[in-house]
Amino acid sequence: MTPTITAFAQSPDRGRGLARDMRVRWALEEVGQVYEVRLVSFDEMKRPAHLALHPFGQIPTYEEGDLALFESGAIVLHIAQTHAGLLPEGANARARTMTWMFAALNTIEPPIVEWEQARYLEHDKPWYEARLPLLGKRIRGRLEQLSNRLGDADWLDGAFSAGDLLMVTVLRRLEGSGMVDAFSNLSAYVARGKARPAYQRAFDAQLAVFTASNG
Amino acid sequence: MTPTITAFAQSPDRGRGLARDMRVRWALEEVGQVYEVRLVSFDEMKRPAHLALHPFGQIPTYEEGDLALFESGAIVLHIAQTHAGLLPEGANARARTMTWMFAALNTIEPPIVEWEQARYLEHDKPWYEARLPLLGKRIRGRLEQLSNRLGDADWLDGAFSAGDLLMVTVLRRLEGSGMVDAFSNLSAYVARGKARPAYQRAFDAQLAVFTASNG
Repeated sequence: MTPTITAFAQSPDRGRGLARDMRVRWALEEVGQVYEVRLVSFDEMKRPAHLALHPFGQIPTYEEGDLALFESGAIVLHIAQTHAGLLPEGANARARTMTWMFAALNTIEPPIVEWEQARYLEHDKPWYEARLPLLGKRIRGRLEQLSNRLGDADWLDGAFSAGDLLMVTVLRRLEGSGMVDAFSNLSAYVARGKARPAYQRAFDAQLAVFTASNG
Repeated sequence: MTPTITAFAQSPDRGRGLARDMRVRWALEEVGQVYEVRLVSFDEMKRPAHLALHPFGQIPTYEEGDLALFESGAIVLHIAQTHAGLLPEGANARARTMTWMFAALNTIEPPIVEWEQARYLEHDKPWYEARLPLLGKRIRGRLEQLSNRLGDADWLDGAFSAGDLLMVTVLRRLEGSGMVDAFSNLSAYVARGKARPAYQRAFDAQLAVFTASNG
């Protein structure tokens, strides 16, 4: 059965692949699962039909027959658990992959989102400039710890997994800030993720949506 | 094999059960798995021995034979997947439970942690008072959406699950703020979680650590 995901009709990232549908597209490409995309506008996202699928009025969602999911982490996990290619063999190695999935979304991403929100929602506030160093420090602390753990390995725990997929997409949110580049192993790690053919196909697919809507 | 978790030797929440070991204790109590606890000081958490277990220098960790995990979400998921009692029957229902686990930790918890951090780390800043309404509005928006989805159900999707366990512990971080109490169904939902015998046992166990260290 071909799953259908939702994505922004007009992505606020202007085709940079930073919206959370990119994670799901990438996971689907890694496992070789074809999928359909339904584009939703900002207005539609807040209406009952979409809220029935996603109570927080966001994208992506994932529909596959009777199953409807939201939360990019849960969707990637579902794809990983129902296809080969994103989870290692062995119960212990799989459990460790979950650790990295949650670390990406509950430890690394929140201070990055906080920094993004300050830029979008508080840039006209009198405290904006004064708070930036504090927000940057929180992020750099986490990046330093992540860099220390990664060391000179290619991926966080053995072969590329759903944990790396989520972590790379989270770190990409910092592109242009220079914060990841301060850690050469993290910078190479993100580049390694982006060089994967499945990443490229996913990136091109989301870019095509943006190009078509602005062509 | 008896797993060993780590918890604060001196919990900053002063025995209120808001530290993340509470989630793991509760999950272990729900499934009837005995466990051991190793207490770590703030100094020890930043040393190599603990960082080898938890690269971000936090608690809880989870050790079970050769397996070492961190991230409370991943640990609760591991417990749920290896014992009966925290996941529903059926692949689709299980996938939906993952959706609520990630929603608790990636959608509901981040704005709550942001608000907590402002209280702890920015209360002496000139912008502190002016930013509080903005932080509260972000949280209330999420709570309203969560309240709308929960409606008059007892739990988020069918029977009590690991998704409810994480969501209740996340909402408890707002205790004393009045923010959850503004939504009577969410308030009743949290009370329902806290009334579970397994919750009570877990709460008493973490409180005993605090009491012993301050007795």
